[in-house]
Amino acid sequence: MKYPNGVKQQKTQTQHIKYDNRGMNLEKELNETNRYYIDNDIAFIYKKPTPIQITKVDYPSRNKAVIREAFFKEPSTTDYNGIYRGKYIDFEAKETNNKTSFPLDNINKHQIKHIENVYKSGGICFLVVRFNHLNCTYLLMADAFLDFLKKNKRKSVPIKYFNDFGYIIEEKYRPRLNYLKIIDQILGGI
Amino acid sequence: MKYPNGVKQQKTQTQHIKYDNRGMNLEKELNETNRYYIDNDIAFIYKKPTPIQITKVDYPSRNKAVIREAFFKEPSTTDYNGIYRGKYIDFEAKETNNKTSFPLDNINKHQIKHIENVYKSGGICFLVVRFNHLNCTYLLMADAFLDFLKKNKRKSVPIKYFNDFGYIIEEKYRPRLNYLKIIDQILGGI
Repeated sequence: MKYPNGVKQQKTQTQHIKYDNRGMNLEKELNETNRYYIDNDIAFIYKKPTPIQITKVDYPSRNKAVIREAFFKEPSTTDYNGIYRGKYIDFEAKETNNKTSFPLDNINKHQIKHIENVYKSGGICFLVVRFNHLNCTYLLMADAFLDFLKKNKRKSVPIKYFNDFGYIIEEKYRPRLNYLKIIDQILGGI
Repeated sequence: MKYPNGVKQQKTQTQHIKYDNRGMNLEKELNETNRYYIDNDIAFIYKKPTPIQITKVDYPSRNKAVIREAFFKEPSTTDYNGIYRGKYIDFEAKETNNKTSFPLDNINKHQIKHIENVYKSGGICFLVVRFNHLNCTYLLMADAFLDFLKKNKRKSVPIKYFNDFGYIIEEKYRPRLNYLKIIDQILGGI
């Protein structure tokens, strides 16, 4: 099983995790970028909460509920969605430590089906993939991604494919990852 | 604080809750309806997971993570969103036991701001409100809802307002709550 949000499996007994600051750079930078878009009325795009199955809840006081047992569920859709220029926008963001390709086991079957559904429905849909060791973040549109899956039996997308069919998202001060600039170029060209 | 998803505050120590079957009729019926839309390639609309803040995770075995401590967070957006006819669609669903009006403390400030943002961006946005004791479910479009808030200082929306400016969602066998039929009528009329 893959743990959502980069929660790494470890053998220690209990971990106290400060979830807002656990070195999830890509997620953090995308959230900051989306906050910038929201604050400037440009787009309203949010990360969905991590899907979990809650099985036990404590009520230690009148005003506070504490979840005492819950399990991560496999996501059936992508992480981010919202509205931009009146259109539905939807994407999945992933980091990889791999230097030569993006392993496809990062994305589950339901998510691929969802990407296909959104693409066919006319939504703006893409992947954001960061190669950590190359210090490079790509945007790959759904059509290019689905085309790769259709034509290849490989278990990973080589970096060359991102170079040939994707777009590099530049890192700036603010907004940090202006991915909508690329979407503008693509939409403008239709 | 309001607990999301109808989790009621109780004084018992620990509750084992079977979350899929806790009498949340409206949520269940909407999820079934959305499943029907997905299975028939009509629309791709999902309920967002409940937002929580995870603070402790156990790893009792190599393949299993158990959340041992987490807290409910107040939602900053609505519960449901997705894509329909190429457009962004977004709504909030609420049940009330009140017989004469819908109490506005059911919807927080961030959610109202979100509804406004989506409406202004050209998305399809509305509320689904079920009056449990009247056995009646209404759809109220964002513009009518925002107009009410603008013109009234009341803390609840009277049922008359739903009758005058909303639409009744009929309950059928399948799909259970065909709310997109109403959206079709409205979009068709533009």
